[in-house]
Amino acid sequence: MEETNTKDLQSASVSLTKPIRCIVKLGGAAVTCKNELETINEANLKMVSSQLRQSMATGSPSGEVLGMDWSKQPGESEISSAILDFEHRPVADPCPFIVVHGAGSFGHFQASKSGVHKGGLYQPLVKAGFVATRISVTKLNLEIVRALAREGIPSIGMSPFSCGWSTRERNIASADLSAVSKAIESGLVPVLHGDAVLDELLDCTILSGDVIISHLAAHLKPDFVVFLTDVFGVYDRPPSEPNAVLLREIAVAKDGSWSIVSPTLENMNKQVETEAAAHDTTGGMLTKISEAAAIAKLGIDVYIVKAATTHALRALNGELKGSIPDDWLGTNLLFFHSILKSN
Amino acid sequence: MEETNTKDLQSASVSLTKPIRCIVKLGGAAVTCKNELETINEANLKMVSSQLRQSMATGSPSGEVLGMDWSKQPGESEISSAILDFEHRPVADPCPFIVVHGAGSFGHFQASKSGVHKGGLYQPLVKAGFVATRISVTKLNLEIVRALAREGIPSIGMSPFSCGWSTRERNIASADLSAVSKAIESGLVPVLHGDAVLDELLDCTILSGDVIISHLAAHLKPDFVVFLTDVFGVYDRPPSEPNAVLLREIAVAKDGSWSIVSPTLENMNKQVETEAAAHDTTGGMLTKISEAAAIAKLGIDVYIVKAATTHALRALNGELKGSIPDDWLGTNLLFFHSILKSN
Repeated sequence: MEETNTKDLQSASVSLTKPIRCIVKLGGAAVTCKNELETINEANLKMVSSQLRQSMATGSPSGEVLGMDWSKQPGESEISSAILDFEHRPVADPCPFIVVHGAGSFGHFQASKSGVHKGGLYQPLVKAGFVATRISVTKLNLEIVRALAREGIPSIGMSPFSCGWSTRERNIASADLSAVSKAIESGLVPVLHGDAVLDELLDCTILSGDVIISHLAAHLKPDFVVFLTDVFGVYDRPPSEPNAVLLREIAVAKDGSWSIVSPTLENMNKQVETEAAAHDTTGGMLTKISEAAAIAKLGIDVYIVKAATTHALRALNGELKGSIPDDWLGTNLLFFHSILKSN
Repeated sequence: MEETNTKDLQSASVSLTKPIRCIVKLGGAAVTCKNELETINEANLKMVSSQLRQSMATGSPSGEVLGMDWSKQPGESEISSAILDFEHRPVADPCPFIVVHGAGSFGHFQASKSGVHKGGLYQPLVKAGFVATRISVTKLNLEIVRALAREGIPSIGMSPFSCGWSTRERNIASADLSAVSKAIESGLVPVLHGDAVLDELLDCTILSGDVIISHLAAHLKPDFVVFLTDVFGVYDRPPSEPNAVLLREIAVAKDGSWSIVSPTLENMNKQVETEAAAHDTTGGMLTKISEAAAIAKLGIDVYIVKAATTHALRALNGELKGSIPDDWLGTNLLFFHSILKSN
């Protein structure tokens, strides 16, 4: 198809001197308070940022955190003295990471009230919603960039809309990765987000963080992808239900089809599909598995894990590559061939 | 495709169905409080936004302002009910405008403390300053986008860094205008800003709002350009000095050289140059005139005027095209040929 060719050509020109280690999806539900409008889950965001710093192995050898958010703090008229700390200190460049975050309680309200995802930018309500959605998601992006910078991560906000990314019926039509790859080459950590974008057929739509992740993974081939969520991983039914079982290992074949390797319950696959389909009316786990499977089928390990836990840190550190320890809680999707090899 | 390798061609090939009416430079000093770190001049910003709305002739025919910033307001947990107002209301698309703002009391501190403009991104202090500068200027960008959106302007923040713009020894090396022009074609108002960017020779530097304006003007050929500042225009010496004279009309020749047409004082040009040169150690009026002259020599009228005044509104409305009324306060730079024609 035309668009695939374009994408391939674009990605063909992306050449990185150091391979990307990890692309992290920071789930909106993990860093915002779901039911409180435009409210950040500060404790979680701080912990997530700190774990990301550890796994990127950035900062000074002594382990000090040299903050990079030099903004005015509430109630202060002067900027902190952190700046002087940087003189004559060696600071390691971070391992190449990319962070992509969702919207959580930012943006969703504005987008759904106006129907931005359905297009029709010529309609006043949709246009206003488009503007309002971008304001809300860029607000969250700024806060996440600041939280990461406070941990000493050289984070750089990059909005898909500003990057000129656009869609065609909600699939990525054009997404030049050169700005993202130049940032990485310069030792910076790009922080992208789900965004309102222009769509060739619909005028406009919402480009979700998950679609961005798939695109980045396909073109930049990271060692692994970590989805940080607000539950321990993917379950066979909504995790709030009493008998929900955490799916620990899912094998993905070349064609994207998948099957559950662990736990080994009879007819588990069938059952999950049924339960998941029912659940999916509200955007659920089947979608999640399919998206993660689309990445895993490229030979890239995927971990879906609860944000701000030791399990998340282990996944981010790359400790799980090769074999999953029994005490790790989360869902691992991996390419079928890898399983054959490791067994 | 061609997209990746020929940036210059791209800028040259930008074709808009409706010509750009105006590119506005919102001076940092006009919308922030110069001596108060990261503090917005709320009253000025509100007035500037309201004048921009009027000159873009956007909004509903009844003159109501339908706000597009649906963010949570301080002290409220719910979003305002403004959203319902949009249903079934005709709202005119804005006249094609682009807004570019400076940094004022945002970003300058971070950039100067770390020397970002001098490059050397591999140095920890510079890298941290790069991150801190971007955080500060994107913070201001968000606030300006919100202020414009509250006035019903469909404003869209676009950071030069995210747009993939880069420099070579501080001059623009690559600045793909396709994202900006697509936004305009969609009836949106791009809001760009001075930014920390990657530089091919220096690693990194500061791309100033004025350089962005010149680039946009050269490639998008607006009807006119307005610089909104904190003084009435360009004076023959620092405006704080008692005998400072406002330069009302400056004629610019094809080669960029300029001379003062009004007021007609003997040896004025020479005198300004001397006074200005002395003043220019702190970044001053000679630079300002040269930059404005570089735009005027393209045949584009330039107005330098005090923000949030009736003079500013008249300039933004395009009322001054052709002849400058005696009661207008500001500086007008225009191409030499236009003067010959109008005389």
